[in-house]
Amino acid sequence: MIASVQLVPVLPFPLVEPGDDLAAVVLAALADADIRLAAGDVLVLAQKVVSKAEGRYVTLSQVEVGDQARELAQQADKEPALAQLILDESREVLRVRPGVIIVEHRLGYVHANAGIDRSNLPGADDPAVLLLPEDPDSSAAALRAALEAAFQPGLAVIINDSAGRAWRQGTEGFALGCSGIEPVEDQVGRLDLFGRPLEVTEVAVADEMAAAASLLMGQADQGCPAVVIRGARWQASEQGSTALLRPREMDMFR
Amino acid sequence: MIASVQLVPVLPFPLVEPGDDLAAVVLAALADADIRLAAGDVLVLAQKVVSKAEGRYVTLSQVEVGDQARELAQQADKEPALAQLILDESREVLRVRPGVIIVEHRLGYVHANAGIDRSNLPGADDPAVLLLPEDPDSSAAALRAALEAAFQPGLAVIINDSAGRAWRQGTEGFALGCSGIEPVEDQVGRLDLFGRPLEVTEVAVADEMAAAASLLMGQADQGCPAVVIRGARWQASEQGSTALLRPREMDMFR
Repeated sequence: MIASVQLVPVLPFPLVEPGDDLAAVVLAALADADIRLAAGDVLVLAQKVVSKAEGRYVTLSQVEVGDQARELAQQADKEPALAQLILDESREVLRVRPGVIIVEHRLGYVHANAGIDRSNLPGADDPAVLLLPEDPDSSAAALRAALEAAFQPGLAVIINDSAGRAWRQGTEGFALGCSGIEPVEDQVGRLDLFGRPLEVTEVAVADEMAAAASLLMGQADQGCPAVVIRGARWQASEQGSTALLRPREMDMFR
Repeated sequence: MIASVQLVPVLPFPLVEPGDDLAAVVLAALADADIRLAAGDVLVLAQKVVSKAEGRYVTLSQVEVGDQARELAQQADKEPALAQLILDESREVLRVRPGVIIVEHRLGYVHANAGIDRSNLPGADDPAVLLLPEDPDSSAAALRAALEAAFQPGLAVIINDSAGRAWRQGTEGFALGCSGIEPVEDQVGRLDLFGRPLEVTEVAVADEMAAAASLLMGQADQGCPAVVIRGARWQASEQGSTALLRPREMDMFR
């Protein structure tokens, strides 16, 4: 028998500024919300908060634009400086259409515009954009260490983002980074009700958790960048999020 | 301020047989689990249960195999009868590799093997497979009508399935059909913290709910085909799940 799972919003959550100590901010928000983490809890944190604490802002006027970016900007109908940043953050451009540049990010995610975001940012006169965290798995690991020191071992942290998908409309939350959890659960060997091995063997548990948390993050009018998932079963692991990336040679849709 | 969201497993859930009255089965399971639905609740049901009640079994030995299926079977290293069923359930074959045939299902989903499943099925001597429900949106609508009659209006039903994805490893739950809920929520006009319009405008809420429920469905050793999502905010709509399908001409990855 399994129990209910709770998705608990960590609210209120303060605005985060570059240089903020992310772990301290999260611990204070948890205390304000009267949430004490216990073994088995998963904290899901929006990438935007991590990027802000890491100061991943870039002012567009300060970007040196090259020829490739200029051409890409024209194709995609984007500002050349933004196209340059997208190129800088990417390994390869997969598709270009007006308004969107789909790339393989330097960390391996396939993501529109390299995940670069301009919403919720100050400075409208000289626009700044926010890049993804430098290394989301490391950010997740550092935050998890701080949370486990403050509460107890047996926690997991997922940093999520939202992205569009091939074939389907609308964005969905996914795990950009994680720590403590096996992101893709191997169900090889588990049997079905008639004793035969299950056909589907690998479940993207961390992405499902990221999507679940995203439900709450999108619901709050003022934003809810942190959600605790409580009561879910998951496997511990130290491997980080790379298991979620389909190896290029196994990918039929590039 | 937003409240916690609960994912409540509907357990125990009986084995479903062809010809079963799905609404009666679900209502009895809810009663057994002591769950009374209230306005705002979303019931997520695994497609397998719907397919079984609809008797969507096909015995492989009874399939007439054509030349195209024979060739496809060889390419994909699959039984010819299964390849024939996949073709019958599809509009177009997108990719073929040993072990997998990616198609556009006749209902518009891009899905490996047309979502045809052979796990959890009786009859090992003369293998049967289970096709997807004939029309998941209609099945969801019928179930929702029965649930609203038994409880109260303001419910939603999502029928979910799991599928692999481009670029990422592991399967994830998605909404195969729905009733009562706006599956893709348009956030145009919502402002960010600094008063500017949000860039990301459409969120696949029904897919995020399907993924969230899938977390519980995969956790139960004996399977948990029904989950109630309680406390989430969502918009009412009668439009069904087709809004989740990216129109072919807008899809960069076919």
